[in-house]
Parts: sequence; structure tokens; C-alpha cells
Amino acid sequence: MINVDEAYRIILENISTLPIQEVNIKGAVGLCLAEDAVSDIDMPPFDKSSMDGYAVIAEDTLSASGQPVELGVIEGVAAGQMPQKKVERGQATKIMTGAALPQGADAVIKVEDTEPMQGPKVRLLKGMKKGENVCPRGEDFQAGQVVLKRATTLRPQEIGILAMIGMGKVKVYSSPKVGIISTGDELVEVGRKPTGGQIRDSNSHCLAAQVSLTRAEVECFGTARDDRKSLIHMIKKGLRKDLLLLTGGVSMGEYDLVVGVLKELGVNLFFEKVAMKPGKPIVFGKYYKTAVFALPGNPVATYVSCELFVRPAIRKMMGFTQLSRTIVKAQLETPLRSRGERREFRPTWLRLEDGRLSASPVEWHGSADLLGTTRANSLLIVPEGVESYSAGQEVEVMLTGEL
Amino acid sequence: MINVDEAYRIILENISTLPIQEVNIKGAVGLCLAEDAVSDIDMPPFDKSSMDGYAVIAEDTLSASGQPVELGVIEGVAAGQMPQKKVERGQATKIMTGAALPQGADAVIKVEDTEPMQGPKVRLLKGMKKGENVCPRGEDFQAGQVVLKRATTLRPQEIGILAMIGMGKVKVYSSPKVGIISTGDELVEVGRKPTGGQIRDSNSHCLAAQVSLTRAEVECFGTARDDRKSLIHMIKKGLRKDLLLLTGGVSMGEYDLVVGVLKELGVNLFFEKVAMKPGKPIVFGKYYKTAVFALPGNPVATYVSCELFVRPAIRKMMGFTQLSRTIVKAQLETPLRSRGERREFRPTWLRLEDGRLSASPVEWHGSADLLGTTRANSLLIVPEGVESYSAGQEVEVMLTGEL
Repeated sequence: MINVDEAYRIILENISTLPIQEVNIKGAVGLCLAEDAVSDIDMPPFDKSSMDGYAVIAEDTLSASGQPVELGVIEGVAAGQMPQKKVERGQATKIMTGAALPQGADAVIKVEDTEPMQGPKVRLLKGMKKGENVCPRGEDFQAGQVVLKRATTLRPQEIGILAMIGMGKVKVYSSPKVGIISTGDELVEVGRKPTGGQIRDSNSHCLAAQVSLTRAEVECFGTARDDRKSLIHMIKKGLRKDLLLLTGGVSMGEYDLVVGVLKELGVNLFFEKVAMKPGKPIVFGKYYKTAVFALPGNPVATYVSCELFVRPAIRKMMGFTQLSRTIVKAQLETPLRSRGERREFRPTWLRLEDGRLSASPVEWHGSADLLGTTRANSLLIVPEGVESYSAGQEVEVMLTGEL
Repeated sequence: MINVDEAYRIILENISTLPIQEVNIKGAVGLCLAEDAVSDIDMPPFDKSSMDGYAVIAEDTLSASGQPVELGVIEGVAAGQMPQKKVERGQATKIMTGAALPQGADAVIKVEDTEPMQGPKVRLLKGMKKGENVCPRGEDFQAGQVVLKRATTLRPQEIGILAMIGMGKVKVYSSPKVGIISTGDELVEVGRKPTGGQIRDSNSHCLAAQVSLTRAEVECFGTARDDRKSLIHMIKKGLRKDLLLLTGGVSMGEYDLVVGVLKELGVNLFFEKVAMKPGKPIVFGKYYKTAVFALPGNPVATYVSCELFVRPAIRKMMGFTQLSRTIVKAQLETPLRSRGERREFRPTWLRLEDGRLSASPVEWHGSADLLGTTRANSLLIVPEGVESYSAGQEVEVMLTGEL
């Protein structure tokens, strides 16, 4: 049986980045840039005033006597306008934040540092240095410059930059189309009340939510019965997606047909088990370009294996370079025991206080107890061979969302 | 001029949570639960096998002589089926993971710990304790129990729980409808090449992305010219939303009409300036139930004030209790200077290494330099009165996304 690292490596080796597509920047936040973004302009596009005030010649602003200087105001320039007149010695141009500096001027004095006068004149209450309150042309970036590199994640600020440089449309890597099938005769739809040995299908809903947060496109095909025909029918539909996720039907019992049907349909399986807890029976394969995961039916096992393996696979398809969740070191609050056989992932509450991370594994009853994970924001990792941790020890914890 | 904390307090005092609506759980991830979620079933709904194996009576599994025990197999039960026969002394029922334990049995022996025999018999290679590999009925939660409290954020695991307890539809707080207007004669659309004193409108794109990440519904109205008529026309449309965001047109210059028009239209303004950098001219008001922000036109000022004030306002409307971004303590990597007048927010790269957070403010050229923020993942907070920090000092840093 392979371990978690080996499984991760095999999965990523067999996942390719999806084709590039062009999208409007209005819907591009969270996607991954598939081209270098090159500016077509200098930013700022001209020497620019960073204040409301008066464009002046710095040398003019300090009188020998230390008395306030008075300058003649020759025009007013708003943002969006271009100055028409050159500022000569003894002159000033009234200027707004963001407006272009007139020729001749080399500084802007804030309106708060001036006094209004009768007629087209202004009194300066302060001396200025050359360049003060002026952003020189091209200071932030220049025409022809790569401002965002390929493989950058598009956050709001990157979207803003793309708008600045005129890229209203942008090339990104496509998001995968993901199909989800839950399997098992014991499953009933959410709307029905389970009777006898039945339970409601929760895995496809939890998985769909996990997948949708990656910005992949999810389709739930519903529940397949534990019979060959039902499985073949649904899996065939699912194999048209970029990624097919199955849950349930991969444990040892004779009623578990999923692996057999996958093989029968020609899915090339790379592994069928991973030494981890929860979640040992985890199947990964490929069918032409379609990646296939069959995840264990226990809700927490499904949840954890999606975080560990499916999410990185999706992120690789989407072109990202940072694939897995962040792992942090934290101080354990309460002692903890493990079997020490397989690597274990324990739902945990991670708390940040005074710059110190502390981890408290939540109470839970094993891999069916999804309610336990609602009290957690992370997964504590117990490596193979570790049978106990004592309180105060340093442990590794995988974040499963924002802290 | 009020400070950041006072502004934050005034905003939240004047924002109400939006009405409750019922949504399908398929689209509910990221929303806030508006009711207590009560289970209609016990989970597990019956004493349940957590393994593939044989349901047995624990007392039967240890022979006095230490020899393997042999039991008669009376039936097989798959997940989804209910056992028909009671297990008596000397008997076992073949059972699958997730299936209901038959009456009489009190433990499940893993199939790996048994040996097949001829006929309906099984040989046990191990003794069992009562309750082993059995999840007792109602262990995770019970019918009538509140499993998720009102105001819980719906993450994938909470969506799974709602499915388990039959809540295919769920009451959540509504997401606000947000309108965005950029203002300024200098602005041109992304698709056009700016000439003369013009620049492209980037703020409405960056803001729209920031807002969409909160799951609010954004409509961009476009750019209003710096004239009363154009502004009145657009603002009137925007005031029909739950939240109206304007950018630009709030600095001191005479061309800045926004505040005047807001007052003319009857918007009740609570403040017009906040002592912060970037972003001093920040206007907040209410028009009946509509909250209105007019943010400064400098891109980083808009970005920062959205993170600081708009995002918490939206989150309060959506019913969340955790409103503002997480603030962490980190060690400063490079020395830093500030004016020390207003609270300053400096784009910063926060790095987590060996459990230690370190903060490096990125190079940037002030509040127009949005490109600087693309090198950052956080904002370093320089409090009022602090004029410098030296390398190694502990500083406060606000996360602006995932680490």
C-alpha cells in the first residue's frame, strides 16, 4: 500500500493543465493567468499630481526673506484635462489630484499649504522641494513591461491591473468540468426520510461544495445503485468530464463493484489504496484525458481525501503552481493517541493568539462523524509511526480554509 | 477627523442584517445560516458496522483453549439492508461497512481477521471486545438535536451535515445587491486607449472583484462624468441597491461633486474623512436602507478602504459574526518609516516559515501604485504616532486572503 506522498506524486504526474481560454476580467477573479500581461501604457501616463493644489517651480517657493511667496495663477487643470500653458518663473497652475503636471512646473504644493488671494494669485505658506507631490511618468510601470507573469493567481488587485493596461479580456487556464456520482444501495436523496438501513446521501453535497470553491464546474449525477448496470450507465456519463469523482463502493465487501466496473470500462487505475486514516480505500485512475477518483463512502474520509488529493488535482488543471493546502506548525493543546500505522488526519481547531498557533483536536467518533469536522478548521497530521503526542508538543496542521 | 476604529464602529452601527431567504443547499456554500438546523434522525440511525466483516457476540469470540473459534453464518447484510435474523450464541452474520448490526450481536470482526471455511461457517482469528467496530445509534447526533446553530458559516462540511439531516433547502441571510459607480472625467473604459490626461477605470473592476468574493451580487453602472446631471442620474439608480459604492470625486478639489450630489439627493452622511493612509477622503452614509460609500479615487486607497470598511459592512448584512479580516503579529524584516499622523496600511508580503510569521513591506510608490499590491498578500498596520519601526520589531499585519 502506497503512502500519502506517493499517492500525491502519482496523481499530479498524471494530471495535465487544461487548455487556455479567453475570459472577460469581470468573471476572472480566482482563475490563473495563462499569458504574460504586458502594459500598453506608462503608469502614470504623465508626470502626475498626487495632491489637490498648485503646480509650481520648486525654486520659486522659498523667498530669501522667509516670507510667504505669492505666485500668479495662469490656469486650472482638472483630472482628465491636459494643461495648456507652460509654468514660467513666478507662475503657478491650479491642479487637481491625478491631473497632468504642466510643462515647466516640478512640484505641487497642497491647497492646505496655500492661502487664497484676490485675483488670479496664490500665497504659498511653505517651501517645496523639486518633485514633491509629483508621481513621475512611468514610475509604477512602463509600456512594454510585463506587469503580471503567466501563472499568477488573479486576485482583485490583479484584476485592477489588467483593467489599467487595457486587458478587458484575458487568457486563463480553463476550469475543469467535474462530475460527481455517489454509490450505494443504502443511500436516499436528501428530500426523503431514510428507513431501515438507509442513510441520506451527504457525500455528493459536501464534495460538490468543496469542488465549487476551487471554481471548477460541478455536475452531480445522483446516486448509482450497487449493481453493474446502474454503475456503468452513470460512470459512462461521468467519463465525459475532465474529472470524475465517485464516493462509496470501494471498500473490501463483495457488494463493492466500483473498481470492477472502472476496470471493465477501460479506466487505467494507478492505485486502489493509500495508507491514511480516514480514507484507506482511495482509487485513482485515468480514462483518456479524464481523471477518476473513487473515494471511500465514509463522509470524513471523502472530505479529507478531497482536500488532500482532489483539490490539488483541480488546481493543477487550472494552471496554479501552489497546489496543496498550507501546512503550519502549531502547539498541541491536549494529548493525542493514534494507531501509528497509517498517516492520520484529525479534525482540529487551530487558534492564533498572540502570534502563537495552538491546535486542539475536536471530539469526534471516526470517519463517519462529519459533525465533528464542523467544529474544526484544519486537519492535524499524525505521521506514520507516531503513537502519541503529549500536550505542548509541536505538531503539523493543514489549514482547510481561512484562519 | 475620526480614526479608523471610530469609522468602523459608525459603519457597523448603521448596517443591518438583510432579510432571511430560503436557498437550495447546492448553492449555499459561503453563506450564513439563518436558523438552527435540527436533525430529524439519529446518526448513525442504528447500531452500525464500521467494517466489512462478521457481526458476532463478543463472548463467543474467545475460546477457553485459545484456539480459533468457528461460528455458523446465518445471513449476509449489505449497507442499505436490514438484518432479518437475530444472532444467537455460536452464530455470526456477514456484514458490510455502514450496515445495521443484527439483534443479538455486539461486535464486528474485520473480514481480514477471519478465515473462509467450507459451508456457511467462518473461522475467527482474533478475540473481540463488546462494541468493537460498532458505532452505536445516535453516537454522532440525535433526532431533535440542534446540529448547526444560527449564524454558522456554511462550509462544505456544514453543507454535508444539512444533507444528512434532510435539509435540502435552508434559511440563510440574503447577500446584498451592490452597485458600483466610478466617477471622473479622466476615466475611460478598459477597451479604450487613454490619451492626454486620461487613465482607464480600474477601480470599479478591482472593487467588483473584492465584492464578488464576499458572495454579494455586483452591478457596475459604469463611469459618471464630473457633472451634477451625470452623477445624479447614476446615483439615483445606485440608491435602489442595498449598498452603493462610488470611487473617485471625494478629494478636496472643486471638481469633486460627489459629496454635494449625495447630500442633495438626501443621503444622510455620517462622516466624510477618516484619519488613515492611503484613503483619507472616505464618505459613509445611508439613504433609507441603502448604505453608501464614496471611496477615494486612488486605486490602493479604494482597495484598502474596501477591505477595511466595505467588506465588514457586507458581511454584517449577510449575517456573519466574524466581520473583519484576521490581524496577526509578525516580525518585521526591513525597517520602515511613516509620517506618524494617520494610521497607515502598507502592502506587505507575509511569510510563514517554521511557525514564525515575518512581514516584508513591498516596494511601492503610494496610493496610486496598485501594482505594488500585487506583490503583497497583506497590509501592515502602522498605528497613529509611530514614525518608524526597525527590523525585527513585532508588527500587526492584516491578512487580505489566504496565506
